[in-house]
Amino acid sequence: MAFESKIKTIEWVDNVSRMIDQTILPYEFKTVDVKTAEEMYFAIKDMIVRGAPAIGIAGAHGVSLAAIELANTTTDKVEFLKKLNEKAEYLKSSRPTAVNLMWAVDKQMELANSINGYVEDIKNALVKNGVKLENEDIEINKKMGDYGAEVVPKGATILTHCNAGALATVGYGTALGVIRSAYAKDPTIKVFADETRPRQQGARLTTWELTQDGIPTTLITDGMCSYFMSKGMIDMVVVGADRIAANGDTANKIGTYTVAIAAKYHNVPFYIAAPLSTIDTSIKSGKEIPIEERSHEEVTHINGDWVCAKEVNVINPGFDVTPHELITGIITEKGILKPNFEESIKKAFEEK
Amino acid sequence: MAFESKIKTIEWVDNVSRMIDQTILPYEFKTVDVKTAEEMYFAIKDMIVRGAPAIGIAGAHGVSLAAIELANTTTDKVEFLKKLNEKAEYLKSSRPTAVNLMWAVDKQMELANSINGYVEDIKNALVKNGVKLENEDIEINKKMGDYGAEVVPKGATILTHCNAGALATVGYGTALGVIRSAYAKDPTIKVFADETRPRQQGARLTTWELTQDGIPTTLITDGMCSYFMSKGMIDMVVVGADRIAANGDTANKIGTYTVAIAAKYHNVPFYIAAPLSTIDTSIKSGKEIPIEERSHEEVTHINGDWVCAKEVNVINPGFDVTPHELITGIITEKGILKPNFEESIKKAFEEK
Repeated sequence: MAFESKIKTIEWVDNVSRMIDQTILPYEFKTVDVKTAEEMYFAIKDMIVRGAPAIGIAGAHGVSLAAIELANTTTDKVEFLKKLNEKAEYLKSSRPTAVNLMWAVDKQMELANSINGYVEDIKNALVKNGVKLENEDIEINKKMGDYGAEVVPKGATILTHCNAGALATVGYGTALGVIRSAYAKDPTIKVFADETRPRQQGARLTTWELTQDGIPTTLITDGMCSYFMSKGMIDMVVVGADRIAANGDTANKIGTYTVAIAAKYHNVPFYIAAPLSTIDTSIKSGKEIPIEERSHEEVTHINGDWVCAKEVNVINPGFDVTPHELITGIITEKGILKPNFEESIKKAFEEK
Repeated sequence: MAFESKIKTIEWVDNVSRMIDQTILPYEFKTVDVKTAEEMYFAIKDMIVRGAPAIGIAGAHGVSLAAIELANTTTDKVEFLKKLNEKAEYLKSSRPTAVNLMWAVDKQMELANSINGYVEDIKNALVKNGVKLENEDIEINKKMGDYGAEVVPKGATILTHCNAGALATVGYGTALGVIRSAYAKDPTIKVFADETRPRQQGARLTTWELTQDGIPTTLITDGMCSYFMSKGMIDMVVVGADRIAANGDTANKIGTYTVAIAAKYHNVPFYIAAPLSTIDTSIKSGKEIPIEERSHEEVTHINGDWVCAKEVNVINPGFDVTPHELITGIITEKGILKPNFEESIKKAFEEK
């Protein structure tokens, strides 16, 4: 049973890409209408839209917008495709490490190049496909939600880290999608949200989107999880993923690994919720996943103010890798993968 | 070998109690001269001085200040002692749960009542004893530092949580005292400081006092400890304690327990540094230690700004309890207590 979320992070409406401005949440709610490929480049770069799946759809919409612009200037198919390709490369450069962005833009360009017809036909096909990809993202999330909801105990309190929610996808969420589906079945479900320093996505985004949808949410700081687990106040953990290796090792927002260790110590089930597209079977184990070092200011400043002595050193890894032995299951749109993950992942891809 | 720290948190100078104003660190360094018992009441209440041992000495100085004030108004010993007792009770009410405050004020009052002599003699004895308690606090810390330094590996990187430093004591520190003594022997020692949300004592105070003393310090957020442990970048953990039970279970700042679990998972030694006065042998295990619930604003706000949705729930336990099985040793002024703690603690108190 799917929950009806109020949140639509990105949506194609009347030939514009309408998105929630995530840079000002939770202080202000505002949508932005992105009307050109150039505006989309900056919407992605400036993180008005964020979260791997949402950025992918933004890229697909960006190609649709480019096609609309170019179709107004030329009916020459060769010129149109050449210029469209330039715009596609430009869009991809807005966040060069975002795998989903590359995937979605390339998907649109393959379509553009495959169409036998006029410029107008290509434009129409791209717009239609942008909307299709958008809808598919929600469908995948809802399938994951349904599978995930089956393992949520009645009346459970679920801990999550960072924001793997509607705001990171088109509109339902991966980890928070599981929570939404569970809540639709059982409104006694509650959520604990880790603040998720340094960028505070848990505090800023997860508490906002869950309370918008009326799901009871308690904000805790990152060090508190073990305390509540020891008191029996957390029944399961569900988090998202940035990249999963073939053996199940999972890269996710820094701090996830600490939560996973605490969960293991207290025998609390620890689940990853991610679509199969997040699993990179070309990578054998988490050791091969590169960890991005991010700006030191994220640690030394909060809301623009210093929070420490100025002479301090900082190391700011954006992600950590949770080894597969700490993971109870990986919730995907094809069902819940269980250990041995090497085998269950292989099987899921064979069926795909 | 003791390290010479630049930091004197509280010091009796020319008949005033001079203290570092900790409410404005690390943004500004300022000392405050506390001249009356009433000023001391507010210095403790408003947390200009904080940390159990430092508050104890503030209380002792407060009684000295009260004696100086009263000796100017009366030479009648009965009246003097009656009024001094009222001031002592008033001082104790500034932070009613601070065990060290009660202990130090009571110690001064016992002395006042025991003296055969004039008002002037009592006053002089109290001033002298206040200074003696102050010096003893540093001596105890330095002894702990020396014992602790023996178990710090050469070139180690030491992780600490919260602030168990010079700023929590008269001037050397418990956990940070161990670090200072280790650094005096081996200047290749480095420190990782947990930010320690919600009140950020690690970011605000620990980074300040260690960089003031020239000890290389890296600030990390609370969720990062496991990542650095998995990379072999942390060799040991040393933290302070608020209260230790007879079996070694240790209450300390929220988040300590999470660090202890991560340390166990990575086989990183986890030490508590605390004077014997922190061990409460009347309490059998950590289960009997009450956990203070603190203001929700500490979680929902940073530097006065909201960091989350306004509809969110909050639970804000100030402390957690690390079970004795996660503790490698308790560093005290009588040496390092090892498991079985029930026995080693008993033995340390018998020798005392």
